[in-house]
Amino acid sequence: MTETIRFDDRPGEECGVVGIFAPSEDVASMAYFALFALQHRGQEAAGIAVCDGETARIRKDTGLVSQVFTPENLRSLRGRYAIGHTRYSTTGSSVLRNAQPFLIETRYGPLAISHNGNLVNTYALRRGLLQKGVGLLSSSDSEVITLMLAGAEGASWEERIRTTMPKWRGAYSLVILTREGVFAVRDPWGFRPLSVGRLKSGGHAAASESCALRTIGCEAIREVKPGEVIRLSNTALSVLQALPPVEPSALCTFEHIYFSRPDSIWDGRSVHHIRQRLGVELAREAPVEADVVIPVPDSSIPAAIGYARESGIPYNDGFIKNRYIGRTFIEPTDSLRKQGVALKFNVLEENLRDRRVVVIDDSIVRGNTSGPLLRLLREAGACEVHLRITCPPIVSPCHMGVDFGTCEELIAHHRTVEEICRHVGADTLHFLSLPSMMRAIGRATGYCNACYTGAYPLDVEPEQAKTGFENSIC
Amino acid sequence: MTETIRFDDRPGEECGVVGIFAPSEDVASMAYFALFALQHRGQEAAGIAVCDGETARIRKDTGLVSQVFTPENLRSLRGRYAIGHTRYSTTGSSVLRNAQPFLIETRYGPLAISHNGNLVNTYALRRGLLQKGVGLLSSSDSEVITLMLAGAEGASWEERIRTTMPKWRGAYSLVILTREGVFAVRDPWGFRPLSVGRLKSGGHAAASESCALRTIGCEAIREVKPGEVIRLSNTALSVLQALPPVEPSALCTFEHIYFSRPDSIWDGRSVHHIRQRLGVELAREAPVEADVVIPVPDSSIPAAIGYARESGIPYNDGFIKNRYIGRTFIEPTDSLRKQGVALKFNVLEENLRDRRVVVIDDSIVRGNTSGPLLRLLREAGACEVHLRITCPPIVSPCHMGVDFGTCEELIAHHRTVEEICRHVGADTLHFLSLPSMMRAIGRATGYCNACYTGAYPLDVEPEQAKTGFENSIC
Amino acid sequence: MTETIRFDDRPGEECGVVGIFAPSEDVASMAYFALFALQHRGQEAAGIAVCDGETARIRKDTGLVSQVFTPENLRSLRGRYAIGHTRYSTTGSSVLRNAQPFLIETRYGPLAISHNGNLVNTYALRRGLLQKGVGLLSSSDSEVITLMLAGAEGASWEERIRTTMPKWRGAYSLVILTREGVFAVRDPWGFRPLSVGRLKSGGHAAASESCALRTIGCEAIREVKPGEVIRLSNTALSVLQALPPVEPSALCTFEHIYFSRPDSIWDGRSVHHIRQRLGVELAREAPVEADVVIPVPDSSIPAAIGYARESGIPYNDGFIKNRYIGRTFIEPTDSLRKQGVALKFNVLEENLRDRRVVVIDDSIVRGNTSGPLLRLLREAGACEVHLRITCPPIVSPCHMGVDFGTCEELIAHHRTVEEICRHVGADTLHFLSLPSMMRAIGRATGYCNACYTGAYPLDVEPEQAKTGFENSIC
Amino acid sequence: MTETIRFDDRPGEECGVVGIFAPSEDVASMAYFALFALQHRGQEAAGIAVCDGETARIRKDTGLVSQVFTPENLRSLRGRYAIGHTRYSTTGSSVLRNAQPFLIETRYGPLAISHNGNLVNTYALRRGLLQKGVGLLSSSDSEVITLMLAGAEGASWEERIRTTMPKWRGAYSLVILTREGVFAVRDPWGFRPLSVGRLKSGGHAAASESCALRTIGCEAIREVKPGEVIRLSNTALSVLQALPPVEPSALCTFEHIYFSRPDSIWDGRSVHHIRQRLGVELAREAPVEADVVIPVPDSSIPAAIGYARESGIPYNDGFIKNRYIGRTFIEPTDSLRKQGVALKFNVLEENLRDRRVVVIDDSIVRGNTSGPLLRLLREAGACEVHLRITCPPIVSPCHMGVDFGTCEELIAHHRTVEEICRHVGADTLHFLSLPSMMRAIGRATGYCNACYTGAYPLDVEPEQAKTGFENSIC
Repeated sequence: MTETIRFDDRPGEECGVVGIFAPSEDVASMAYFALFALQHRGQEAAGIAVCDGETARIRKDTGLVSQVFTPENLRSLRGRYAIGHTRYSTTGSSVLRNAQPFLIETRYGPLAISHNGNLVNTYALRRGLLQKGVGLLSSSDSEVITLMLAGAEGASWEERIRTTMPKWRGAYSLVILTREGVFAVRDPWGFRPLSVGRLKSGGHAAASESCALRTIGCEAIREVKPGEVIRLSNTALSVLQALPPVEPSALCTFEHIYFSRPDSIWDGRSVHHIRQRLGVELAREAPVEADVVIPVPDSSIPAAIGYARESGIPYNDGFIKNRYIGRTFIEPTDSLRKQGVALKFNVLEENLRDRRVVVIDDSIVRGNTSGPLLRLLREAGACEVHLRITCPPIVSPCHMGVDFGTCEELIAHHRTVEEICRHVGADTLHFLSLPSMMRAIGRATGYCNACYTGAYPLDVEPEQAKTGFENSIC
Repeated sequence: MTETIRFDDRPGEECGVVGIFAPSEDVASMAYFALFALQHRGQEAAGIAVCDGETARIRKDTGLVSQVFTPENLRSLRGRYAIGHTRYSTTGSSVLRNAQPFLIETRYGPLAISHNGNLVNTYALRRGLLQKGVGLLSSSDSEVITLMLAGAEGASWEERIRTTMPKWRGAYSLVILTREGVFAVRDPWGFRPLSVGRLKSGGHAAASESCALRTIGCEAIREVKPGEVIRLSNTALSVLQALPPVEPSALCTFEHIYFSRPDSIWDGRSVHHIRQRLGVELAREAPVEADVVIPVPDSSIPAAIGYARESGIPYNDGFIKNRYIGRTFIEPTDSLRKQGVALKFNVLEENLRDRRVVVIDDSIVRGNTSGPLLRLLREAGACEVHLRITCPPIVSPCHMGVDFGTCEELIAHHRTVEEICRHVGADTLHFLSLPSMMRAIGRATGYCNACYTGAYPLDVEPEQAKTGFENSIC
Repeated sequence: MTETIRFDDRPGEECGVVGIFAPSEDVASMAYFALFALQHRGQEAAGIAVCDGETARIRKDTGLVSQVFTPENLRSLRGRYAIGHTRYSTTGSSVLRNAQPFLIETRYGPLAISHNGNLVNTYALRRGLLQKGVGLLSSSDSEVITLMLAGAEGASWEERIRTTMPKWRGAYSLVILTREGVFAVRDPWGFRPLSVGRLKSGGHAAASESCALRTIGCEAIREVKPGEVIRLSNTALSVLQALPPVEPSALCTFEHIYFSRPDSIWDGRSVHHIRQRLGVELAREAPVEADVVIPVPDSSIPAAIGYARESGIPYNDGFIKNRYIGRTFIEPTDSLRKQGVALKFNVLEENLRDRRVVVIDDSIVRGNTSGPLLRLLREAGACEVHLRITCPPIVSPCHMGVDFGTCEELIAHHRTVEEICRHVGADTLHFLSLPSMMRAIGRATGYCNACYTGAYPLDVEPEQAKTGFENSIC
Repeated sequence: MTETIRFDDRPGEECGVVGIFAPSEDVASMAYFALFALQHRGQEAAGIAVCDGETARIRKDTGLVSQVFTPENLRSLRGRYAIGHTRYSTTGSSVLRNAQPFLIETRYGPLAISHNGNLVNTYALRRGLLQKGVGLLSSSDSEVITLMLAGAEGASWEERIRTTMPKWRGAYSLVILTREGVFAVRDPWGFRPLSVGRLKSGGHAAASESCALRTIGCEAIREVKPGEVIRLSNTALSVLQALPPVEPSALCTFEHIYFSRPDSIWDGRSVHHIRQRLGVELAREAPVEADVVIPVPDSSIPAAIGYARESGIPYNDGFIKNRYIGRTFIEPTDSLRKQGVALKFNVLEENLRDRRVVVIDDSIVRGNTSGPLLRLLREAGACEVHLRITCPPIVSPCHMGVDFGTCEELIAHHRTVEEICRHVGADTLHFLSLPSMMRAIGRATGYCNACYTGAYPLDVEPEQAKTGFENSIC
């Protein structure tokens, strides 16, 4: 009759990381609040590890940050510094096994790691570890990173990190907990975001997005630069340029388009502001005569405001989103759907009837949600529907940490824009061009646009380029 | 260190009700989807009762609709018709005991009731039942309604409902499940909303808000009129004007201001549209020279758009709300709060720095959230902050189903507008006047404005007017 | 592949009740410990209600006593007196709805009831309540008892109990919580046990079995006499002979045979001692030449010791029972069972090989466990297997609170002893005769033996005698 | 008021292991049933890993076997062979982290291990692994065993096991799952039990105790000999004497005294039979004039029967044990205890009053339960109480897998028998002498009696001999 599933045309496999070094005892709470602000980056598992300089403690579980942690278990996570992780995952059974932080005991004491990103040479690195006689618990590249550090030579963690980094190819924004403190590490391409800031009460924090740092009251926020290793401390930051930054850098465009919270700063730019400018560029590149501009809430609201402002067409709400759509809920059956049962969005008929409507959406990945949305507009009496997308068609999978799925799943991989337009039932459809998108962002280069172009900024090992290696542990 | 609490300056004690009569077997699923669309009216408990014409089955529990129901337990709720309820509640231990629907066995077969509203003569009615030797399970006026119907005389449920209604004074929008089918009943004052519609696949449905009816694909939606008793059926509705409507009616203004979803129709008016007009009226009544108009998301967005449009001041986002704030989460301690930890909202500095900001909010009840919000704007560099509220000051408690708290808790009960302005730290503060609010709604009379005026449309029994009777069962 | 089920050839539908009146604040804990000692009488739900003389509080849920209660929820059950209940139930969905104590608000304040037993005129009493316009929440005769008391006239609870008792026909051992204190009430037939005792620290307690009273340190334990109403207090008990005891009384024999814990006193007799004497009588009535006497653990151990002593045949263990068999577990499939997978019992081959074995069991109800047990003995090399049962064949259902199932389910209802002997694969089978059983108990009359004879000590209403009335609420 | 704790004077830290190799698909169910029969060896966590020859799958969690596994999750554990583990653990937070089987990916494919026992050179082995740059997840010696195998050289798992075994010093009964099948491995001292048998339906199984093999229908059961490595298969077993057995062997006496189920065979001897003979030896060594012999149920029942038979004093029950005492329950406060609240045992007064009582118990470890038990006997009117223990005083901790606690916790470490006698309130107290105990067992040598003598059969590394090494991960 009914089934519990997850439906969405949004990409997954993102994660959020945090690190806190504070004189207070409340580091676990601080990490909790920062993770809470990064919940949008992953809702399937969460974890926090703390250390008092000697012993490390950890708690991680599947579920939302607010489900994994209670005042009681936070209280038991006493320490002087902490790292945390919130995880998006596609797998079922092994969710907990892959949950982070990874915490192990090494000859140098405890080592815990939270990782956002994806290595493109995992297969070779795993093989190397296994050949050395090391056992692996999971299929995760994050465990590979952890065990490589555990086996690294060097007089200090800083040295061991520095000497191991050249072996990792791909995206890694890391926070690392050791007896020497917390390190924030970013790959030399700069794929995924990572920022640090100063806590008003003393100490420092690192997090995937600046919004999390501001949530916990940070000042003097700046990004960890590509190739940097920064040790958090109570006083000044200790900064090491471990690897020279790759030129040009390869920042993920999609953080602007969809992932990051609008109140975050990415590449020194306000994400909210960029999104408004994407709307402005869209209006210039693909104008249309219409009566109203509406967003697909929530991520497209700033772009719709920008489009409206630039085009002079009034902005208004067209869709009302059910705020209680969560990770899992019961979906209507096909037969109920045909009777008009529509859970996620309702429309505001009075803003749509007999109107020519411009709909702004951030992206089309698999192409299974735009159709039903546009149908709702038609049923509400919209006489024309013009769909405008704030990025180019996504034609290639991401190997650097975004779960767009395979080529087969990407609608733009095997359909033209005209075909997609017909498929979703729009009168006109326009994807923002790459140059206009980059103009909105304000830089011509320095970003990874592989998902739009297929031109990856680094070689991907063939095993991963296909389907991912077969793991023998489930 | 930390505590799990619930904080909000929003009123509570609202509920959502649904009734479905459908030829399909899927009535429980239909009720589920409709309840899901009414989740904003109550997040503490949910329930569905079904009947096959002979036997009734029920499932109810504390939690969100998506937590209470699974495909399995929905499947076991087989029947031809159903009613459902989603509940807001302030109590802890007795949540389940007060959860609805109430289902009992009577001499006329099973009887189940879902109730939105509040009677003002509960104390007398309870006393009457107890004196007759009836035992009561809960402190709820909804149980009183149920047991009065169980004891009523009459040849049919329609007759028993009709003859009992005159004894109930106050707000009651009911759906009632019996062997004769599902009834939708609304008090003669029309305090709380209740609508009916026709299912495309056959049958009818009733729900607190039209948005829920549209979610399950209803057509020909109309409100149940004050004093009406409507029996849902597969074919035509059976409509009885059981009590003459009270003149003038006493529709709850606050459904427009805050409660209802913007995609609902209340009193024949689009809630979203009314909210935009409230913004327009605010702009006319309390103009100010400023650089940007921002809403407190989400309920104030349409009003902010209206204010911006009328005033010519650009609309923009100023606050970003954390979408994962749920019913319960761990709140920062005072000491963390002083360090700047702020979970619910972040600000968009680039839209605020050195700007004169107009902030639109729907209401001020207890007055404990506006202050911190405005402080965030100041810290982000706003040079002026002008707070505009889309309704008058709330000075009196509601006895008809809204939990505004007691007089003592209402900030406007004992402070002037100037005092409140200073308290929240605004440069200027304006509450929309009653006439302007009614002008936005489009009617001069027919609404209950007791919370703004203290003039109740009916007498409230003294026991309730004080603190509520003391119940001897917890 | 596998299924989670409950299997047993033991009767169900028994319950345990407790009442505590103590000057200490710890009445909820006392009730918990007493319920814990009565856990064998029902494992499906448990509950405790407390009262401070004004307000009553309750907690009940499905599960074992140790699962329903935590130190935290016990702490919140503050009061001066308490009642509790542990329940065996056959139903699934409505377990919680039927869980006890029942607690309601009446015109005389709160009223809570815990009931062990079963009325035989429930149908007529329910009809009477429904006709008066009372609504019923469950199918339970215990709710009927509660609501009849709520509607009773009289100046005190003692009076209301006294005047209502004559209307109840059947088995009822009750503890009742009111603003006037806790009452212990037993039907005039005396079907089910109920005892009272004095707490060393002051106050009194009542419980289904004396073992529970001893567990909480009671002295001066005596049975509540048939027809008595006793009010517990801090000082002397207040005793009322509300109804004359029926002569002869109708005490349940099966409490001796199986239900009661061996450390309880029933009818002034040690249950353990009676069980040993049942073994002695069996040895006299059905001697056999054999090498070893073994019990089916645990309830048959005393009888096996008695049989061994009287017969001179050595006693030894033959079966080892898995102590972790709980309410639900995964049962082997038929195919696994054929391969010899046997979860509940293993055998001690060295005590059985080439031996002539006498197996003592307490009763045969449905007849589905003896066969597999005896097969295990044969496989272990027993050359002869003689099954001896400590009571006569059970040929009629119980309507006074024991769930033997229907006539159809009772193997002895439609098979002779010889047929049962062949069915279970014994060389010889003997059921203890009624006179010998009563000789072991030490009384010729005063017990209800309807399950062995079909002669009920009171008329059972036809509806119940058939299949139980059809309830229209599930 | 009350606290949830675990109390017992029984040793812990035992575990149960199983391995199944069967042609059927039901290996997970078989493992489940075998674990269920080993539940007495550990109640804190359970797990099963399966393999289809290529991919391994695992499920493990805290809780009883019946709580960890459901028909659904067993169904998903498809494979041709399986291993399982049930664990006793003293720690709280890290229970899951230490739960077994340990499953890792190695260069040779998946490797899973279930371990019963304890190594005495763990500290050195851990240090060795860490020095090689391996990271460790837990403080468990079982993980050390797993990772050493992962890093071992050799052409086959058999070879790798054989070449690694000499490095392990201490107790290890292992089942190991690999792509080559399941191996059963026992240390050359033979500390802990491990048996193999043939499944009637084809295939073989290994388990800690023979009772588990019989529960799943095994035939031709024999013990894995000290130093043996046996590969399970569908046809004949492949047996390798990997290490020469240490002479004399060091079988754990305490398996006879307390751990093993009475229906198991240990060292070719029936545990139940040995326990009866322990009672016989006790009667010879420490006779006393008395009226009744009673056991402390359940483990001491056979010994009490043996004592009674040898002494001619009648056997009877004296204590009734509450069958529902589980892992955790709420304990009475001291004040309640003083009032006589006693949860675990009640006494049968009629068997004790004015009697001279011999109480048989298996052992005294910490000495905190005998006192209260004997007090119950006195209160029931026993005029003399003679305590007889079926083993010598335990004076030294076990380093081979039994959690007797530290020297400080062992009452016999710092008190004489006379002092213990006074402490527990017995009239006389006798511990069975070592020679008599060994006579009951039927061998003079070949057993480890270090807990009675302090003479360990192998050197224990100093770190462990003290308090266990300090682990830096909690």
